[in-house]
Amino acid sequence: MKAILVNEETKQLYIGEAAEPSIAENELLVNVKATALNRADLLQKRGLYPPPPGASEILGLEMAGVVEKVGTGVKGWQPGDRVFALLPGGGYAQRVAIPADMAMRIPDQFSFEQAAAIPEVFLTAYLNLFVLGGLQAGHTVLIHAGASGVGTAAIQLVREAGATSIITAGTKAKCDTCLELGASVAIDYNAGPFAPAVKDATEGRGVNIIMDFIGASYWQQNLQSLAIDGRLIIIGTMGGSKVSELELGYLLRKRLQVIGTALRSQPLSVKTNLTEQFVQFAMPRFADGRLIPVVDSVLDWDRANEAHEIMEKNQNTGKIILRIN
Amino acid sequence: MKAILVNEETKQLYIGEAAEPSIAENELLVNVKATALNRADLLQKRGLYPPPPGASEILGLEMAGVVEKVGTGVKGWQPGDRVFALLPGGGYAQRVAIPADMAMRIPDQFSFEQAAAIPEVFLTAYLNLFVLGGLQAGHTVLIHAGASGVGTAAIQLVREAGATSIITAGTKAKCDTCLELGASVAIDYNAGPFAPAVKDATEGRGVNIIMDFIGASYWQQNLQSLAIDGRLIIIGTMGGSKVSELELGYLLRKRLQVIGTALRSQPLSVKTNLTEQFVQFAMPRFADGRLIPVVDSVLDWDRANEAHEIMEKNQNTGKIILRIN
Repeated sequence: MKAILVNEETKQLYIGEAAEPSIAENELLVNVKATALNRADLLQKRGLYPPPPGASEILGLEMAGVVEKVGTGVKGWQPGDRVFALLPGGGYAQRVAIPADMAMRIPDQFSFEQAAAIPEVFLTAYLNLFVLGGLQAGHTVLIHAGASGVGTAAIQLVREAGATSIITAGTKAKCDTCLELGASVAIDYNAGPFAPAVKDATEGRGVNIIMDFIGASYWQQNLQSLAIDGRLIIIGTMGGSKVSELELGYLLRKRLQVIGTALRSQPLSVKTNLTEQFVQFAMPRFADGRLIPVVDSVLDWDRANEAHEIMEKNQNTGKIILRIN
Repeated sequence: MKAILVNEETKQLYIGEAAEPSIAENELLVNVKATALNRADLLQKRGLYPPPPGASEILGLEMAGVVEKVGTGVKGWQPGDRVFALLPGGGYAQRVAIPADMAMRIPDQFSFEQAAAIPEVFLTAYLNLFVLGGLQAGHTVLIHAGASGVGTAAIQLVREAGATSIITAGTKAKCDTCLELGASVAIDYNAGPFAPAVKDATEGRGVNIIMDFIGASYWQQNLQSLAIDGRLIIIGTMGGSKVSELELGYLLRKRLQVIGTALRSQPLSVKTNLTEQFVQFAMPRFADGRLIPVVDSVLDWDRANEAHEIMEKNQNTGKIILRIN
């Protein structure tokens, strides 16, 4: 089959030949129609984020497509069914094998491109907000990079949980998109530190949950922005990893939790369980339009380098999709 | 009534006069027979740990005694009933008012001194292990200060959950007590760093939960000792509060959680809920001897200064009890 491969010297992407995947009895073979970019792809391309043991070496953490072949032990799926799923790798290719327990049905009104925009960002946001964050109605959540894929998913999930979100973003256009999706307050991080704005917006109480991709450069402001019993959930370190000041007494006095997490490295049992919970919560809401996949752009897969550049320059609002031919 | 008061200049304790407590309609007035020491008392005495808003200024975070008067809105309690409870303060006194929802019945075979040894350490251990730690059968837990009050309670709760504990303590006698209570491995912290011993004991996997009272001086070793998805629960900073090195990427890669917590500052609703859960789990086990309160020593309350000195010198294994006359 054909797949997008990485030139080890130039780090440029190109379409080349890869081995056909084979399926186990509990798996589906899927003809991939669309995949989506994730920041992890940029790291993996540069050799900084090796795939977990056993996963495909090919990039691509999610896809939408059509079932081509069904494992002998699988019930409920037929060749021809439209399917989308989270992947540990292998989405940038014509075919991929997935465990049937990870497969989600594409709602009728969604294109493959729209469906491919859902798994990684919505499952990440769901895990962080509900499972790790303990999100409840009435909570206030600070979402950094609100206009990113995960950010736009998180804003919607927070709204659907009856909670309030405050977001940070780097341009007025991005702030406006976040407000349209349901954020209550949008903070332009170029206009100054965000912690005073969060304090004002919460009348001094702080937020219950922070979803952070930035890390070290936001550390002190994040801790200041948490309410009593607040949880700081760190899923990226784009602003550095090394923190040189942590006052444990402050964590005790405010009963704070600092949670490092990642979706990709989770065991399959956690991912299937998460997918099941997510399907129950989200699918009726996708069907009636309360939740929407936010697509920034759709490019044919021979333009993968161009697509990566959009993300590298932080130009996207929502997901960048590759159409697989 | 009489109560133990603090001489503001010498920080010595003495028995003096204090105002009688009055009860609200949902409260019980209790004739205190025994109270127990906590490390928080040593801090509060020196002005370093002010009681939460609304709480008594008198020391004492737990007590056992006899119901003297029942609020008009309380059901299920009678004058003469033997009762014990966690307190936000006020235990070092002849009488104290408690919310009826916090009251626990003293098992028949327990003296007041034994019952007074239970609330603070067992509820703290229960909160940290089960509620915050997510303790499950098969887990391994590292318990620092294993011979302390909270440590001896935690070892027993871990055993009753079908999990394994590794403890640290400072003398052979303390290590032996912990092993007798059910710890699988006891590490003498004077014999060298504990992290390599934890690594050996877990065949390199690390532990699922750490209960830590030490803080900064154990920080790096604690992080090294955690397994994937491990949780470091910090309930004290006896070894310093200021950490100067935290690698957020390490938290992400191992999906670690750092949780600062305290029991005393929790809202009443959390404490009553916790008490209810604890009563269900623990009372049948106290009744048939699977759980035991570990009492180090019992002193009459006019020897309160002596009692504090035992704790200040870390000489106790288990709880130090004051008998109130």
